[in-house]
Amino acid sequence: MNIRIPIAVSARHAHLSQATIDQVFGAGYQLRPRSWLSQTGQFAAQETVTLVGPKGQLRNVRVMGPPRERDQIEISRTDEFELGLEAPVRVSGDLAGTPGITVHGSAGSCILNTGVISARRHIHMSPQDATRIGVQDGQPVRVRIDSEGRDLVFGDVTVRVGPDFRLELHLDTDEANAAGVGKGTYAELLVTEA
Amino acid sequence: MNIRIPIAVSARHAHLSQATIDQVFGAGYQLRPRSWLSQTGQFAAQETVTLVGPKGQLRNVRVMGPPRERDQIEISRTDEFELGLEAPVRVSGDLAGTPGITVHGSAGSCILNTGVISARRHIHMSPQDATRIGVQDGQPVRVRIDSEGRDLVFGDVTVRVGPDFRLELHLDTDEANAAGVGKGTYAELLVTEA
Repeated sequence: MNIRIPIAVSARHAHLSQATIDQVFGAGYQLRPRSWLSQTGQFAAQETVTLVGPKGQLRNVRVMGPPRERDQIEISRTDEFELGLEAPVRVSGDLAGTPGITVHGSAGSCILNTGVISARRHIHMSPQDATRIGVQDGQPVRVRIDSEGRDLVFGDVTVRVGPDFRLELHLDTDEANAAGVGKGTYAELLVTEA
Repeated sequence: MNIRIPIAVSARHAHLSQATIDQVFGAGYQLRPRSWLSQTGQFAAQETVTLVGPKGQLRNVRVMGPPRERDQIEISRTDEFELGLEAPVRVSGDLAGTPGITVHGSAGSCILNTGVISARRHIHMSPQDATRIGVQDGQPVRVRIDSEGRDLVFGDVTVRVGPDFRLELHLDTDEANAAGVGKGTYAELLVTEA
């Protein structure tokens, strides 16, 4: 069975708690949606922040909405070198022992003690898709990407099942670049681990 | 047969002709070796240049020596976005139809009309290694990299055989990051195409 999966490429971004939003944009500040993501209810906000690490900083980092319980900053490994820190490869929400960072917004700054990760590559899907495909939440799978001159097979891809999830492979910019992902590139799910 | 291959990660760099070196560093200028690469006779020079593209620039780009017949600038896809140009994935020396770029050095500037590529991933090896492994110059192979949370298999890896070549997989920074390559990470050559 060949399962064709759309690909979404995540550039560095920040999920912030309302407490952090209050500090960096002002008390009671509400994020303003700029564009809606394919996952239901999620949006890229008009707001951006600057991330400041031990070695350097990254400006114009997009804030995602709605606010989350906990701050989570997702960067690529290329970004790590720029900032001068090491972010472990983690699934969203698994933040124990992750490094912190300083966040500058339009109204102030906030030092986060933890929350910087390099997102583990993953596939979002609905429970219906999971049943159809025969995989479970948390299962590691492989996906094949055929592109001009940069074919590869990604292992360590985590299946993430949720009622609001739409079938989509999420890669960071390093991963998408290494696979030569462009407009119209699809991934193929390899359910059997070789 | 498992063949364990050391990995070299190539950051963006510039191979320049002596004519271009004359223009950007001064007439008759000789590159000064800073560190020797594992491939015989090749070195990273003390000299750096700034690359200027339509959208942005990259400073402190390392020049490699010795000088080559033709200018060849190797950048990652992440760099392409920064510079605002598209570099095709090519093997070294295959420069027909590639974009140009402006190079600034300590003594002047030079507009290159062509020569910017995204290096096709490849394995250097000696004729003896090629015979032992059972592959030929130009053959596409696959390599597996097992790393913490970022296992993958790269396809479209070109074998490059030369008497001065030492067994080594060359990846750019995007590719190394996507595979979680760190100190002591090795690649495994998969000779049979699946």
